[in-house]
Amino acid sequence: MRTFPLLLLCLIVSFTVVAQPQVEQWGMFEVTLQGSDAGNPFIEVPLTAEFVHDDTTYTPDGFYDGDGTYKVRFMPDREGNWTYTTHSKRADLDGKTGSFTCTAPSPNNHGPVQVRNQFHFGYADATPFYPFGTTIYEWAFTSPERQQQTIQTLQGSPFNKARFLAVPPYKGYYLEGPLKITEFPFEGTSKADWDFSRFNPAYFQALEERVAELRDIGVQADLILFRPYDGGKWGFDQMDMATNQRFLRYVIARLGAYRNIWWSLANENSFIRHLTDEDWDVLFQTVQQHDPYQHLRSIHNAGRLYDYTKPWVTHVSLQYYNAVKVFGVSPLLRDIYQKPIVHDEINYEGNIERRWGQLSGEEMTYRFWVAYIGGAYATHGEAIEGGWLSLGGELTGESPSRIAFLKEIVEAGPPEGLEPLDHYYLTNVAGKYAQYYLFYFGKEQQKTWDFILTDEDLAPGMKFKVDVIDTWNRTITPVDRVFEVEELDNYRFVDKHRAKVKLPNRPYMALRIQRIDEATQPSGKDTQRDEADEL
Amino acid sequence: MRTFPLLLLCLIVSFTVVAQPQVEQWGMFEVTLQGSDAGNPFIEVPLTAEFVHDDTTYTPDGFYDGDGTYKVRFMPDREGNWTYTTHSKRADLDGKTGSFTCTAPSPNNHGPVQVRNQFHFGYADATPFYPFGTTIYEWAFTSPERQQQTIQTLQGSPFNKARFLAVPPYKGYYLEGPLKITEFPFEGTSKADWDFSRFNPAYFQALEERVAELRDIGVQADLILFRPYDGGKWGFDQMDMATNQRFLRYVIARLGAYRNIWWSLANENSFIRHLTDEDWDVLFQTVQQHDPYQHLRSIHNAGRLYDYTKPWVTHVSLQYYNAVKVFGVSPLLRDIYQKPIVHDEINYEGNIERRWGQLSGEEMTYRFWVAYIGGAYATHGEAIEGGWLSLGGELTGESPSRIAFLKEIVEAGPPEGLEPLDHYYLTNVAGKYAQYYLFYFGKEQQKTWDFILTDEDLAPGMKFKVDVIDTWNRTITPVDRVFEVEELDNYRFVDKHRAKVKLPNRPYMALRIQRIDEATQPSGKDTQRDEADEL
Repeated sequence: MRTFPLLLLCLIVSFTVVAQPQVEQWGMFEVTLQGSDAGNPFIEVPLTAEFVHDDTTYTPDGFYDGDGTYKVRFMPDREGNWTYTTHSKRADLDGKTGSFTCTAPSPNNHGPVQVRNQFHFGYADATPFYPFGTTIYEWAFTSPERQQQTIQTLQGSPFNKARFLAVPPYKGYYLEGPLKITEFPFEGTSKADWDFSRFNPAYFQALEERVAELRDIGVQADLILFRPYDGGKWGFDQMDMATNQRFLRYVIARLGAYRNIWWSLANENSFIRHLTDEDWDVLFQTVQQHDPYQHLRSIHNAGRLYDYTKPWVTHVSLQYYNAVKVFGVSPLLRDIYQKPIVHDEINYEGNIERRWGQLSGEEMTYRFWVAYIGGAYATHGEAIEGGWLSLGGELTGESPSRIAFLKEIVEAGPPEGLEPLDHYYLTNVAGKYAQYYLFYFGKEQQKTWDFILTDEDLAPGMKFKVDVIDTWNRTITPVDRVFEVEELDNYRFVDKHRAKVKLPNRPYMALRIQRIDEATQPSGKDTQRDEADEL
Repeated sequence: MRTFPLLLLCLIVSFTVVAQPQVEQWGMFEVTLQGSDAGNPFIEVPLTAEFVHDDTTYTPDGFYDGDGTYKVRFMPDREGNWTYTTHSKRADLDGKTGSFTCTAPSPNNHGPVQVRNQFHFGYADATPFYPFGTTIYEWAFTSPERQQQTIQTLQGSPFNKARFLAVPPYKGYYLEGPLKITEFPFEGTSKADWDFSRFNPAYFQALEERVAELRDIGVQADLILFRPYDGGKWGFDQMDMATNQRFLRYVIARLGAYRNIWWSLANENSFIRHLTDEDWDVLFQTVQQHDPYQHLRSIHNAGRLYDYTKPWVTHVSLQYYNAVKVFGVSPLLRDIYQKPIVHDEINYEGNIERRWGQLSGEEMTYRFWVAYIGGAYATHGEAIEGGWLSLGGELTGESPSRIAFLKEIVEAGPPEGLEPLDHYYLTNVAGKYAQYYLFYFGKEQQKTWDFILTDEDLAPGMKFKVDVIDTWNRTITPVDRVFEVEELDNYRFVDKHRAKVKLPNRPYMALRIQRIDEATQPSGKDTQRDEADEL
């Protein structure tokens, strides 16, 4: 049972409809053809279709969906009339033509997410997207009831990106009992009889339903393509490169037209021992070459870090817990990689014996704040007994409501995204010079804060209002005074009455400082000042 | 007046000596030829010499030293008989042959420094080298008295690497007064009449004396080849790439045979606005191609970070203050770059108005400890009025004696160099599993420390001794008990009597824990444990 069958029907329109079909922008148009299933149609019948709109052409790959059915899926990115022509070396699939009308996107459809402002993300329609991820590795393989519960939980949560596996890990509960898996990515039922040259359409159809369910509630599907969690028992972590590349092409042909797809090449990639970084280069390039829409691409590391500066990596997807334990690391990572930083694994709120699943709600919330105050993003995980981590279900931790609170603050902040300010010297402030400052004090307890700002873009007389934020108790308390700045020294401005802000001497406090006199012009001080600093 | 004229004479032996000349290993042999000075002998008379020892051949470039004198310098790396033959398109310099005997190195000569154990450094004779740098940008351009004082100060200091400029910055005091500069790298006396195609041998002869003086007291010369400190007034920061490359080749021909040379391509490279990262690639490759000895190569950044993963970079030379303000960043940088990390600018101990020169002695010492406990290295600077930073002279800060104390501890530690331990979870301990642990508590004040170690390589019954170290007051206090470990949980070992170590509730404390029963065998627990952790 799915939540949104009606909406799904609206989005997936078959070409067999007689009237000119309609598909909304960034929806999915599907060409379905019947043909012979002779030979191995998964790899022997290359099928593509050329979709044309004025001077725009896309040529997505098609795929074999079993039972003599071939499909080509397409995500149109412009309104208006599109025509298509299929191409295949097989005559019964070649030269099929048709057209459809691409209509305006529905209200909650902003298109696929892309990199925006170098270090941030936005939808194709320019709406900012601030990732607040969570981790549900195995939710696509669990019971329909739990999947349904997961969707409901996500709807009531702050999370707008979910990391999950395209291929199940090898676990005892998948071998027998209520969760026994009967459908696998490849034809066959066990390692003894996999046919790595033939895919299992039923398996992928179910996976697609999960991606569509996330799409329909506005959650990005950060789909993990390869994973090491097999120990060779199924062997999905030991496939050769030719198989890996065929797998990628099949997944892309099926899922690339879903606007909420992000490609995560792997979880803990270096634990897949037989693949070198050069192999990962090839796999990245395979995705880059075959995804017509250039969905976001990254890879999640174990010990060995992939070189995220490589051009086919769109953003950094990092597992490095220490990078969010202390202030100042995300700005360094931004400077190193020059791309958005997503801390996609920062340990889990939880109570399990494994030490990666022992964070308190406070610590998880703290790590989120440290990430965002550094101009980066983070992904949550919960490992409370019976929990969310692997299978989804219900969230019972204390951090999600605090992460929701952070998300509200971030969404109400500068639309460009939070930028670290004066970041070679300061580590706990982000925002936009002379407009918006978000300070976070983490575990430090303070009774007062001197109203001092780095001089960048400031001019005497500018006025600001201040909110005192308790990030754990979720309160925002306006300070009942206006702060007006004057120059203090070579680097700083200060309130002209030397006013201080009172703080409650508790940890996890933040300050939001916002300009209230837009008329005053900046002084023109700029970031090149340090050029002359050195000698 | 120089301190070691005798030693210098021993090392620089001219080929005009009649008996078979002798040069110690990693000393400098010099071929001197007289020839015509017609045309532009700096760039029109390419001269090389082939030095051969059995199956080993080096072909260093020669250079024109003015007054009709041409030289080829060579640093032999093997004892025994070497022969040479010069090559030049000019007949009077071509085909000159000779030989010399390379003798054993003198006691304090360990050869050039190279990368050792991936993240560390060592001399060519395998002696570990632990960099403890300092910064004397302009010492080569100041008075002979101050230069002499600088050498004496360095001899009494912990510093074994000095960063300084090959070309002076543009400063008022170099234009007139006692420090007025009369010799420049190029022929001419001002921007109006530089001849960038002709070098000034007298300038380089003086620079070489400085490098030799450092060599003779065991200090590495981290020579900064380009710098932005000119504002175009002399124009040495605006030279075109052809001039830059000629400059590099000339410097390498002159200085490459000094065993203590490190090449620092630039200070604050991105402030040299007209050079792109691709230009820096070319400059790095120029050095790589023409330095026969492959001395260490790096570059020091301003805002834009050069990609230190590039193959011609031997180590990371970073200016990123925040990376040593908090624990855990150096291990991340090691994982990113897979090379030694040297924090070559971490702000300066000082009292000047510029905020980069305002560290207390405690803070400078703290940042050094944070660097070394992270498996990295650091470089000191002092900016106390009248001070050391630019011109050298006397050190008056409080940190050098504490840095000397740290150096003694590091030198007495594992010869492989300090490695971060359990570094995905812990951030304040380095050493070698089951042998040596150095914990540093930084600004935290503690009364006790539970004797708990990560289980890696440990086995029940292993015994350890503990020293309590006060890094600021320079005391090492042995704890009067033996600690014997047993397993605590899935990750940790603990003293079997649950003994704690008493600490004095002061900041800047450290603990050194050393194994005292070498016979007990490790358990075989290994670093791959986390592989199975994830799901």
